[in-house]
Amino acid sequence: MNTLADRQGLVRAELERAKPADVRAAIRAGGWTSNTKRLALGFHQANVTILPERLAFDFMRFCLRNPRALPLLDVTDPGDPVPRKAAPDADIRTDIPAYCIYRDGKLVERVRDLRAHWRKDHVAFLTGCNLSIDQVLLDAGIPFPHLVRDDAFPAQYRSSIPCAPAGVFHGPVVVSYRPVPEPLLMRVIDLTARYPLSHGAPIHIGDPEKIGIAALRNVDWGQPPQDEPGSIPAFWACGITAQAAAAAAGIAEMITHAPGHMFVTDLAVSDRTFG
Amino acid sequence: MNTLADRQGLVRAELERAKPADVRAAIRAGGWTSNTKRLALGFHQANVTILPERLAFDFMRFCLRNPRALPLLDVTDPGDPVPRKAAPDADIRTDIPAYCIYRDGKLVERVRDLRAHWRKDHVAFLTGCNLSIDQVLLDAGIPFPHLVRDDAFPAQYRSSIPCAPAGVFHGPVVVSYRPVPEPLLMRVIDLTARYPLSHGAPIHIGDPEKIGIAALRNVDWGQPPQDEPGSIPAFWACGITAQAAAAAAGIAEMITHAPGHMFVTDLAVSDRTFG
Repeated sequence: MNTLADRQGLVRAELERAKPADVRAAIRAGGWTSNTKRLALGFHQANVTILPERLAFDFMRFCLRNPRALPLLDVTDPGDPVPRKAAPDADIRTDIPAYCIYRDGKLVERVRDLRAHWRKDHVAFLTGCNLSIDQVLLDAGIPFPHLVRDDAFPAQYRSSIPCAPAGVFHGPVVVSYRPVPEPLLMRVIDLTARYPLSHGAPIHIGDPEKIGIAALRNVDWGQPPQDEPGSIPAFWACGITAQAAAAAAGIAEMITHAPGHMFVTDLAVSDRTFG
Repeated sequence: MNTLADRQGLVRAELERAKPADVRAAIRAGGWTSNTKRLALGFHQANVTILPERLAFDFMRFCLRNPRALPLLDVTDPGDPVPRKAAPDADIRTDIPAYCIYRDGKLVERVRDLRAHWRKDHVAFLTGCNLSIDQVLLDAGIPFPHLVRDDAFPAQYRSSIPCAPAGVFHGPVVVSYRPVPEPLLMRVIDLTARYPLSHGAPIHIGDPEKIGIAALRNVDWGQPPQDEPGSIPAFWACGITAQAAAAAAGIAEMITHAPGHMFVTDLAVSDRTFG
């Protein structure tokens, strides 16, 4: 019945208006392996951080103390691969286009399926993502490069802003960058501030050096941005903060989605009653 | 320098406009031992649930899955009696007017000071409370009995609405009751919906029997309400849900604030950026 799941060679436009379950089915079937920008527009996309249960309470406090970077959408029971609040029909081990496996804080492997890696003590944390409000920004006519150019994807950087630590977790707030045409700046701030589960308002606008970014071309994740004359640099807290914390703490094991390859949830961005 | 802390015989009106730190100092010094309604108006008051670390991750998931009843404001590190986000100068063991100690799910003792009971594996969870928006309701002229009569306090009931379980925690949503004059009903719903960290909109209005409450006079906590002709019964999710879950699970040990005797935080209700 799910035609998308049976198809190869899908293009992004076909998945923009698809239901989250259909997008996940296409990903699970291998029909979509790219980043998830603009997919299932209007629904929350989530960063996914998988940790052993013994680190779970530390990490959950880390999220609560750093809600701009890591707004909690759902946390699974130990060993349960189903995010029962965010997508009760999904499987976190198969429904993401790509995963990163970290050992001792270092990326060691990128895989397409987690079933061989999943353990009974694994806990998955789902946290909010900027891509969730692509629809809001499109409706408002905000011409962010990743919305208007198919080949563009936001850049991310380690900032000099520290996270509030919790247990073993500490490190810098990772930020995502968008150039904002100056006449739209206050509108973009106002719009994004309304979505705290998707990182809310910018945490910095203007000179990147003030938050420890020496040069925009030297990205830590994502794509180096093009010059955008007449635009103001704006930075939002980013869920990759979890990966940076894993690196800073050198924790023995952590699995995440690959940056930009998010988990598409059933949670509508327009529905604020779930969390 | 803190005159309130040196005084006995304080009356509620003196503490309504006091700073949270001054209210806590008065409580710590024994000058205030009653419930905390209307104290430090405009600041979040918190339900406090203290558990051993081995149950902490279960309980934190329980809160995340039941955000109407248990909206998380802060969670302490194991053994740390300081809620560093909600009130970094406070001590959770001394700054609440009364505490309840539960063993095997049953209330066994009510104490005024927790220092003799505090352990290195204790974790304190602070969750939002309806009393936090007393100022909002007063400003809007909503004549709830607990706001206009000094001797009134809201009633609470076990409802037939189940919580989403997490680990050992399960049980009914506990609700607090307020009679709403019929012409004000939509206004009260709209106002309270804006404050999800203080239980948000009602979870039920109208016939109490529809959520398992056979008779309003048979309260589970708080005061039996007076008849209020011309009013519609309205029910909000309540933080006492944590105590009901402890009872339902029969967990060996839990310490909480005494119902109505909340922890007064430094978090301004008007500041939504902290969580």
